[in-house]
Amino acid sequence: MVSGKYPPFGLKNPNIDTSQEDFLYHFGFGNKSIDVEKVFGDTKFVCTGGSHTRMKQYAEDFAKECNVACSENLSKSDRFVLYKSGKVVWVNHGMGNPSLSIMLNEILKLMYYAKAQDVKFMRLGTSGGVGVEPGTVLITKNALNAALDEKYVQWIAGRKVERDTYLDEDLQKDLTATAKEKDIPVEVGYTMCADEFYEGQMRLDGFLCEYNSDKKMAFLKKLNERGVRNIEMESTCFASMTYRAGCKAAVLCVTLLNRMKGDQILLTAAQFKDFEDRPFRLATAYMKKQLGY
Amino acid sequence: MVSGKYPPFGLKNPNIDTSQEDFLYHFGFGNKSIDVEKVFGDTKFVCTGGSHTRMKQYAEDFAKECNVACSENLSKSDRFVLYKSGKVVWVNHGMGNPSLSIMLNEILKLMYYAKAQDVKFMRLGTSGGVGVEPGTVLITKNALNAALDEKYVQWIAGRKVERDTYLDEDLQKDLTATAKEKDIPVEVGYTMCADEFYEGQMRLDGFLCEYNSDKKMAFLKKLNERGVRNIEMESTCFASMTYRAGCKAAVLCVTLLNRMKGDQILLTAAQFKDFEDRPFRLATAYMKKQLGY
Repeated sequence: MVSGKYPPFGLKNPNIDTSQEDFLYHFGFGNKSIDVEKVFGDTKFVCTGGSHTRMKQYAEDFAKECNVACSENLSKSDRFVLYKSGKVVWVNHGMGNPSLSIMLNEILKLMYYAKAQDVKFMRLGTSGGVGVEPGTVLITKNALNAALDEKYVQWIAGRKVERDTYLDEDLQKDLTATAKEKDIPVEVGYTMCADEFYEGQMRLDGFLCEYNSDKKMAFLKKLNERGVRNIEMESTCFASMTYRAGCKAAVLCVTLLNRMKGDQILLTAAQFKDFEDRPFRLATAYMKKQLGY
Repeated sequence: MVSGKYPPFGLKNPNIDTSQEDFLYHFGFGNKSIDVEKVFGDTKFVCTGGSHTRMKQYAEDFAKECNVACSENLSKSDRFVLYKSGKVVWVNHGMGNPSLSIMLNEILKLMYYAKAQDVKFMRLGTSGGVGVEPGTVLITKNALNAALDEKYVQWIAGRKVERDTYLDEDLQKDLTATAKEKDIPVEVGYTMCADEFYEGQMRLDGFLCEYNSDKKMAFLKKLNERGVRNIEMESTCFASMTYRAGCKAAVLCVTLLNRMKGDQILLTAAQFKDFEDRPFRLATAYMKKQLGY
């Protein structure tokens, strides 16, 4: 585990000539085509999750809950949606680290150009539980890759580069306390980040599968013993990029099933909606206090 | 390079009890909740690409061009869209191998349950060119990972597993001939599959960048000498999973820029639309002939 010493927030790329327009391709606009400082300058939180529909819903629900205005979709591309309600940006990241890494590069540049200060990042997601009951909100202590290292692996110039993952400990404590106040089932544990939903998570219900139930259970048991409580597909990139960028961050994922009991996600629509909203309810309760809404 | 000997198409997972409902979570329906054989049984091509908007447009344009009916969105989840026009399925895959791998597992299961025969897969995408002019449709000879191996890397049970990538050579020849007939600029070459859009492709315009222009150019030159003509983010998973599944496949990506000349994608809306449609025009011309439409 690395120390929680964050670098100061700022563009970490000396190659960018900031006098020129920077076109944020996957948002479909440039930093000089709108008044980014006016629109995004007061941002204090960036909340993200996989699904575009869910992020839109969260942005609208937060606005209602806090009695602030909600923007329309500010993204001009169909790759990601981007909403703002009060001082909170809501942006989806699709599924998997590669998709997330695109969004993070562009939202971090946007925050920089907007001169936003002390922005915290929260990923509100869904996940498979490892020995915890469905509906639990897992607050990630740190993110492990599929080799079970606290690293995000990049390939640059044909070479492997390993980056430390780190998530802010105070934020974990504050979120845990808020969850307890609000009676939201919560647990803190390690999160394994997989690059696949099926074979990479040892599910038995993919099209391709060359292992059996015993091998799967042995791996999940090993994960559980290592302190892993859930598996998702974005936490290592999220925990390493926000750390390198100098932004405190947290990962809050609800578990939709306990992988130690099965692989298929079988919830009623009402259960699913209730579970899916829990990370949002927790994040909203925390942000309301912080922002004085 | 491996031989082009495909296994017979069929479910490659002995753990699935096919008498039970299989819920395709990211499409939001199960194989017994609709008559999959009736809806999907005659499928001959699955065409895929990143963007959901583009796949919808392609499905509709293909239906018009071939005078066949176009379904509505058959997906009940917001993760992917799924259309069918005539004997062609159109499904998006989001960005990056992880997102693609989810979609492929579920569409392959769907084709299996539907008893579809001899289904070919085509990825119609966008990419960055390596020494080729913007607007060229690159037909992928084979897909290389970021270590420049013809492998798709998985992590299963904490261990690295490398799978061969392979794309059907006859399909490449037929598509190249069709492109020439239709006057669509075309080239055949290797494709590098990156897990990132910025650092992983050595772009100089990300939020984070620790190399300079010389290092970037040296890497692109190395790629070019290795026969790589474009870079995208899904080809290794696509070329390995379709090969393992027993489905012939092709990757056709238009280049939106020549990375050897710059990193920002700067096209007029009209150019972008023209370029983006080229893989579709090529695939459509080929499928029309094959299907006798």
